[in-house]
Amino acid sequence: MRIEDLVAQIKKKKSFLCVGLDTDLEKIPSHLLDEEDPIFAFNKAIIDATHNYCVAYKPNIAFYEAYGVKGWEALEKTIAYLNKNYPEQFTIADAKRGDIGNTSTRYAKAFFEELNFDSITIAPYMGKDSVEPFLEFEDKYAILLALTSNQGAFDFQSKKMEGSELYKHVIRVSKSYDNSDRLMYVVGATKAEYIGEIRKVIPESFLLVPGVGAQGGNLQEVCAHGLTKNVGLLVNSSRGIIYASKRTDFAETAAKKASEIQQLMAVELARLSE
Amino acid sequence: MRIEDLVAQIKKKKSFLCVGLDTDLEKIPSHLLDEEDPIFAFNKAIIDATHNYCVAYKPNIAFYEAYGVKGWEALEKTIAYLNKNYPEQFTIADAKRGDIGNTSTRYAKAFFEELNFDSITIAPYMGKDSVEPFLEFEDKYAILLALTSNQGAFDFQSKKMEGSELYKHVIRVSKSYDNSDRLMYVVGATKAEYIGEIRKVIPESFLLVPGVGAQGGNLQEVCAHGLTKNVGLLVNSSRGIIYASKRTDFAETAAKKASEIQQLMAVELARLSE
Repeated sequence: MRIEDLVAQIKKKKSFLCVGLDTDLEKIPSHLLDEEDPIFAFNKAIIDATHNYCVAYKPNIAFYEAYGVKGWEALEKTIAYLNKNYPEQFTIADAKRGDIGNTSTRYAKAFFEELNFDSITIAPYMGKDSVEPFLEFEDKYAILLALTSNQGAFDFQSKKMEGSELYKHVIRVSKSYDNSDRLMYVVGATKAEYIGEIRKVIPESFLLVPGVGAQGGNLQEVCAHGLTKNVGLLVNSSRGIIYASKRTDFAETAAKKASEIQQLMAVELARLSE
Repeated sequence: MRIEDLVAQIKKKKSFLCVGLDTDLEKIPSHLLDEEDPIFAFNKAIIDATHNYCVAYKPNIAFYEAYGVKGWEALEKTIAYLNKNYPEQFTIADAKRGDIGNTSTRYAKAFFEELNFDSITIAPYMGKDSVEPFLEFEDKYAILLALTSNQGAFDFQSKKMEGSELYKHVIRVSKSYDNSDRLMYVVGATKAEYIGEIRKVIPESFLLVPGVGAQGGNLQEVCAHGLTKNVGLLVNSSRGIIYASKRTDFAETAAKKASEIQQLMAVELARLSE
């Protein structure tokens, strides 16, 4: 998907919501466990119910790998269902991969070609030749971990390297990579006050912002620091939407929660055109 | 597997060789492509031929994910085959994972419980709460990326943070994690001259050393800097062994290559007891 098409979707739906599909058999409604593929059944119901209120879906791959071959099958069905029925949705494989060059190429093929995701999250620790293989695919995006939403972000990411915090150094260096226009960045909503600083380095790039809701991040604060003329934000919510109800009304409750966030986002977007 | 059992195997076999199972359908002998599961058929033949000369096997997960469900099935069969037939082998899922706490737990369950690997490689960028979930499993090990074998290692890993290089800082900080005795570290053979420095920080820890052979690392140099009383090294070779021949003699050629490395290792180990 081209960035322009993502921005057009955001403006049309007045939403920059990404729904995180962190599907966990211990948390989904118990009546779904009788289905042949409970993970896919849950995802399909959530997607059908929420697609009008969001512009992106982000399965975290850990939740699928935890179930082995069955998990991988559910992931394949989920992305195929999205690409067939809702091709306007931006899809993110939250995989946090990264390896030496020829191996990163393998991961890129797995997620961009085999599964046909639009983007994948990438860990930057191994540097340029671990990231660039993901940037060779047209209309595909690598979303680099910059400043993550967890407490451990303060172990290394916020510590200084060559005069600036590691996460800023990562962002700055990554701008010199080949095809760096295909980079987006993960910045946790729990670190909203840092987004202003980040915007000085990358005024235009899209940020994927997890941590609104369950992890305590605040949408208005993220928008105050992060919104750009072309929006530049995808804000993710997982648990707050998909596990809002554990009963048979789970899908409509998820839709209600997604709709509530969408309405808050519409207010923020309206300020942009003022 | 307990570390003591790994060390005992190393001393018995006079080898600290790890064989990397980076199995690629474009590189395996073409006659195997007629098999029902060519990836597993290749791995099984390589394992049966080389197991006397090595103490560990390391599938790089990217190569399996690249083939989707079929790749994951081949991975499951490979680890099950190893655990059933060669339980004395130390198994490493070269996955380079790491995510926020509850998600890292998912990855840990995938690789330690679902697949039953002894260890997994982990990227340290997200800090303490992304690593500790992997350290909660008895007789299982997290192998933290410290200084990798690729050129991109110089982008961030070798740059200074709080007075020492990031990779040293990562090692030092990780020693304060809960159950840090279950940590091992990745240090590329191409960076052998750094191993002496690393030994000052972690005199005893096991290092997983990729990059001998195809990537240009030198075994003697690695040993000179890295060998400890309890050996403390697993040296990996992938392409140099498994793709030494593309013909029907691929397995015996792989055995020959593994045996040559084992003999060099026996010489290094003999020096330890001098």
